Amino acid sequence: MTDDQEPIRDIAHLGHFEIYTPKPAESLSFFKEILGMEETYRQEQSVYLRAWGDYDRCTLKLTEAKRAGLGHVGWRTISPQALYRRVQALHASGCGIGWIEGDTGHGRAYQFEDPDGHYMEVYYESERYLAPPQLRAKLINQPQKFTARGAAVKRIDHINLMCTNVTPNREFIQDKLGFHLRERLQPEEGGVEEGAWLSVTPLVHDIAYTRDFTGNRGRLHHISYWVDNQEDVLRAADIMSDNDVFIEAGPAKHNITQAFYLYAYEPGGDRFELFSSGYLIWAPDWQPVTWRKTDRGRGVYWGGTLPESFKTYGTPVVDVSALSKEDLFVFDTA
Amino acid sequence: MTDDQEPIRDIAHLGHFEIYTPKPAESLSFFKEILGMEETYRQEQSVYLRAWGDYDRCTLKLTEAKRAGLGHVGWRTISPQALYRRVQALHASGCGIGWIEGDTGHGRAYQFEDPDGHYMEVYYESERYLAPPQLRAKLINQPQKFTARGAAVKRIDHINLMCTNVTPNREFIQDKLGFHLRERLQPEEGGVEEGAWLSVTPLVHDIAYTRDFTGNRGRLHHISYWVDNQEDVLRAADIMSDNDVFIEAGPAKHNITQAFYLYAYEPGGDRFELFSSGYLIWAPDWQPVTWRKTDRGRGVYWGGTLPESFKTYGTPVVDVSALSKEDLFVFDTA
Amino acid sequence: MTDDQEPIRDIAHLGHFEIYTPKPAESLSFFKEILGMEETYRQEQSVYLRAWGDYDRCTLKLTEAKRAGLGHVGWRTISPQALYRRVQALHASGCGIGWIEGDTGHGRAYQFEDPDGHYMEVYYESERYLAPPQLRAKLINQPQKFTARGAAVKRIDHINLMCTNVTPNREFIQDKLGFHLRERLQPEEGGVEEGAWLSVTPLVHDIAYTRDFTGNRGRLHHISYWVDNQEDVLRAADIMSDNDVFIEAGPAKHNITQAFYLYAYEPGGDRFELFSSGYLIWAPDWQPVTWRKTDRGRGVYWGGTLPESFKTYGTPVVDVSALSKEDLFVFDTA
Amino acid sequence: MTDDQEPIRDIAHLGHFEIYTPKPAESLSFFKEILGMEETYRQEQSVYLRAWGDYDRCTLKLTEAKRAGLGHVGWRTISPQALYRRVQALHASGCGIGWIEGDTGHGRAYQFEDPDGHYMEVYYESERYLAPPQLRAKLINQPQKFTARGAAVKRIDHINLMCTNVTPNREFIQDKLGFHLRERLQPEEGGVEEGAWLSVTPLVHDIAYTRDFTGNRGRLHHISYWVDNQEDVLRAADIMSDNDVFIEAGPAKHNITQAFYLYAYEPGGDRFELFSSGYLIWAPDWQPVTWRKTDRGRGVYWGGTLPESFKTYGTPVVDVSALSKEDLFVFDTA
Repeated sequence: MTDDQEPIRDIAHLGHFEIYTPKPAESLSFFKEILGMEETYRQEQSVYLRAWGDYDRCTLKLTEAKRAGLGHVGWRTISPQALYRRVQALHASGCGIGWIEGDTGHGRAYQFEDPDGHYMEVYYESERYLAPPQLRAKLINQPQKFTARGAAVKRIDHINLMCTNVTPNREFIQDKLGFHLRERLQPEEGGVEEGAWLSVTPLVHDIAYTRDFTGNRGRLHHISYWVDNQEDVLRAADIMSDNDVFIEAGPAKHNITQAFYLYAYEPGGDRFELFSSGYLIWAPDWQPVTWRKTDRGRGVYWGGTLPESFKTYGTPVVDVSALSKEDLFVFDTA
Repeated sequence: MTDDQEPIRDIAHLGHFEIYTPKPAESLSFFKEILGMEETYRQEQSVYLRAWGDYDRCTLKLTEAKRAGLGHVGWRTISPQALYRRVQALHASGCGIGWIEGDTGHGRAYQFEDPDGHYMEVYYESERYLAPPQLRAKLINQPQKFTARGAAVKRIDHINLMCTNVTPNREFIQDKLGFHLRERLQPEEGGVEEGAWLSVTPLVHDIAYTRDFTGNRGRLHHISYWVDNQEDVLRAADIMSDNDVFIEAGPAKHNITQAFYLYAYEPGGDRFELFSSGYLIWAPDWQPVTWRKTDRGRGVYWGGTLPESFKTYGTPVVDVSALSKEDLFVFDTA
Repeated sequence: MTDDQEPIRDIAHLGHFEIYTPKPAESLSFFKEILGMEETYRQEQSVYLRAWGDYDRCTLKLTEAKRAGLGHVGWRTISPQALYRRVQALHASGCGIGWIEGDTGHGRAYQFEDPDGHYMEVYYESERYLAPPQLRAKLINQPQKFTARGAAVKRIDHINLMCTNVTPNREFIQDKLGFHLRERLQPEEGGVEEGAWLSVTPLVHDIAYTRDFTGNRGRLHHISYWVDNQEDVLRAADIMSDNDVFIEAGPAKHNITQAFYLYAYEPGGDRFELFSSGYLIWAPDWQPVTWRKTDRGRGVYWGGTLPESFKTYGTPVVDVSALSKEDLFVFDTA
Repeated sequence: MTDDQEPIRDIAHLGHFEIYTPKPAESLSFFKEILGMEETYRQEQSVYLRAWGDYDRCTLKLTEAKRAGLGHVGWRTISPQALYRRVQALHASGCGIGWIEGDTGHGRAYQFEDPDGHYMEVYYESERYLAPPQLRAKLINQPQKFTARGAAVKRIDHINLMCTNVTPNREFIQDKLGFHLRERLQPEEGGVEEGAWLSVTPLVHDIAYTRDFTGNRGRLHHISYWVDNQEDVLRAADIMSDNDVFIEAGPAKHNITQAFYLYAYEPGGDRFELFSSGYLIWAPDWQPVTWRKTDRGRGVYWGGTLPESFKTYGTPVVDVSALSKEDLFVFDTA
């Protein structure tokens, strides 16, 4: 921190995430045909993709692997100096892994692990997407033509990571990377923290940590892309239903984040969220909103409940048959 | 600046604007009944208003005056230290006016003038809106109940100021307040800059400066509020039409900013924009988009043109009958 | 029938329905403030209401009574001759009750009972709504100004009646009134008919008969009003949630009728549906669509299920505590 | 007519239209890729198409020809008897041409000319579309999978024909085919009728006749397809703009019909309208709405005007350079 009265402001935004899939061809088809994303590169076991409104060359790296799950999360810093500051802090904390030379779409990156064991990296240099002639938009302020294919997701939105214990992960990302806590699920005052929603941008969250009731480490709850309005989410639900994509929950509205959401599983097993609506946070002194049992904190604003799978399913997939109702009781989140 | 390689990041967001109206009762009725805003305070010749999604107690100060026009624009800083830094820079530049003790909704503020003579102020302390019981929302992360009255605007969006010469105003707000240039209208390379769209947030603009073809100083082009989707803009157009509110332009889509817009005049004469869609900017190294004649930079993406009044009408209203077609030729903006 | 090869085409459309409420003031407030309907008349224990787009003076008669439930359903004929023909057929069938002199909004009407004991009437003369000056629309083809209040329902859509046995009621309304069967829920081939959706217009249904699993007669499942798009249904869900109106199901999409629906209970206890989307039927030789167990006929297209109350709750309200799971098993409808 | 007090009710709906194109490959690509229609058959110089929600096998026949323009309009009757009655009436009127054996999608048809020389036909037998496996919808009440390609038009809506004199054409289609007059543009009381909007269904129009200010006969103003909501029209505008399709007018809202419209020219030159919103007509005794100069009858509800081409452009295209402003003065329609 350059000034101990002022917060860290070094992370610019969520740059990309990498997910693993045991069914690479089917997963790729889902992201390209059902969600309408563009493939921008292939290398070894990975395909690089972006949404039509993403300014980056890659926001999703899809990598073939034996099991579904998170590869890593990439955070872009606001400047080279900011990158330097974050690397120093991460290194000092003992969670650092080291530098890599970069990847398709970005330059040198410093890798590290969060307390729950999710891989992350910070980097500054990024490759701005330049559309080939057939994909060039008529609007010069739009990175790519609107291809109108499938759900036509517009841009990367956020990531939700499961963890055995929310608190240390939340504190880690606040302290080391400067995230602001926006909302929190803690059913009982002084009780266990079930979920935390944080951001460095005015988005209500760039990342969420939610409790893994199965007791496993390092799992992925979901990745999320944005569409500009609720009609587009409904339209996507029609497209998914007509193409035999299982919709786990939604379209509906969360209490937490006010998201208008739809959750589905991509063919490899990773959960995917289509997100719209919500709200933006402008206050530099935002006071985190804490949801208690009594605040209708069941995750669904208009009524109903989220399915039980929402509490236990994540990737890699684990056996949950031994879990009792009591284990799952308290958890209901977004 | 804490580091001469890094940009100023001291302004958090557009806090509020004050506009003058010679018809206070009719203007108030427009903002409350047609746009659906809430009155939060009255004092002397002013009424303080906010949209249902604004976290601040006041985003619009409506003040009775002989002529319509801008009162002032208020920018909130990210911290007290940031306020101190900006005041130093403004004072040193010679444009400073001095401190005021504050106003309804915010604390101590430092006033100054931009090169074209628009009054502005910077402040840090702000009063968070606390809804009275009858307006309390069920969602604890929403500042107020959704009253669903009229166009039901959600939050303050941006302001557009006319000026005799865009360039010095654009440079002033970049250099002194740290705004980023997002888009620019300069029909000929090396020619006159007709408009500049700038922001400190990921919004494509918090402020625009556009050329005043009448040669006057200090005029207001429009204030703008946000609604979450395009259907809401269309709905507002129905409400306005059915209530005899003159719609000057739209609903339609700008090239610049990609806004889905509707322009109307409130009864006092000030222009008001209802804004939705557009895009958010995440890149810390965003390259400003410059619109030339050849880039379809006529302001209207899908076709048609903006009315001539869009080029000359502002508040205070001035006589434009002596202007020739040539005077207006080059200007077409958003 | 004027020709035994051609169908009866004597009913023009659903004209109005009357519902009973034990809480007249709260019910009236719900229909006026939450749904945005207009009161057009009061007489004795009844208030007459309409939606802003209804051409009739009254589409909903709200009558104070000890228990919630259906008053009656009114069907308008296409001509006086058509009325005469229907009265002859109804009278001959033995279900006729007799003529009344009319009511607010319509002239002479012939009353009758369907096999399950729901009161209905047919009439031709109808009073076209003439808006008072303050409610006159700018569009001369629109019956009333768009008041934009609450959910702002646009027009009457359909009615859904519960019955102990769907088949005879379905056959009655087909044979005596000329309704066309559009869709049908019959989980097993040759098994019990659980629901029937019929219309005289291109709407997918003007009336539905659905099985009452409690074994009671003459109950009301729901009345329904239309809004023009899905965003309006979502907007209504926000309004209801923020005003403590219990939403029983939705917003979501039915398989049957393809409706985008939201079900709520008005304060008196009657179920209300907000309906949009769906499809129109143009084919004069439409083949009824029969839903079997295997056709994803669970009522909810995108996933999830309807709550159990959807199968048993109706007005008048009855005690369902003695019903077993088996009783309710097969039933899932729209 | 079975009873001289009752109206003719023999036409069920608009079945299909045929248009000519001098650029068959480009036109086909427009209808398939930009509008998202499905090709169902090819024969000689014609390709047969339908929208995903059309129950018929063909609603658009696209035929290669030297010049753009209307091929013919096909009306489906409600029964074989109704067809017989209409043929008798048409034959007796002297406008009949004779029977053809049928075409792809329908059986025997009787051809005739309206007073302005547009070819039409009536038929009863129609081929219900049966989707091939890869296009089969999950919803058994939906004729085809939602392919979500391009603008994804849902169904045929209406046709607008230009004519030298509206009145005789309007009377012809009312008297011979039983259309109801819904709205009419007659700027001066007792003056020239500039446009008439008529239907046999609750749609506000299945056909419109509008004045051809160039004095030519038999021209086509536009064909129209429906989408379910306004967002879809805006989405289509983005798709068209990004694919260099010229948008002549809209998206905007007509006074007449309350349509939310977008007009474009397909590559062959025929005008195409994307239509949503509007209103349905239920009253069997609907009183036609007559628009005078003073009723804001300029065609555009929210403001602005239609381009001059809207008054003169039709297919086949004719030279309009000799027309004076006075010739065009009075005409402004929808």
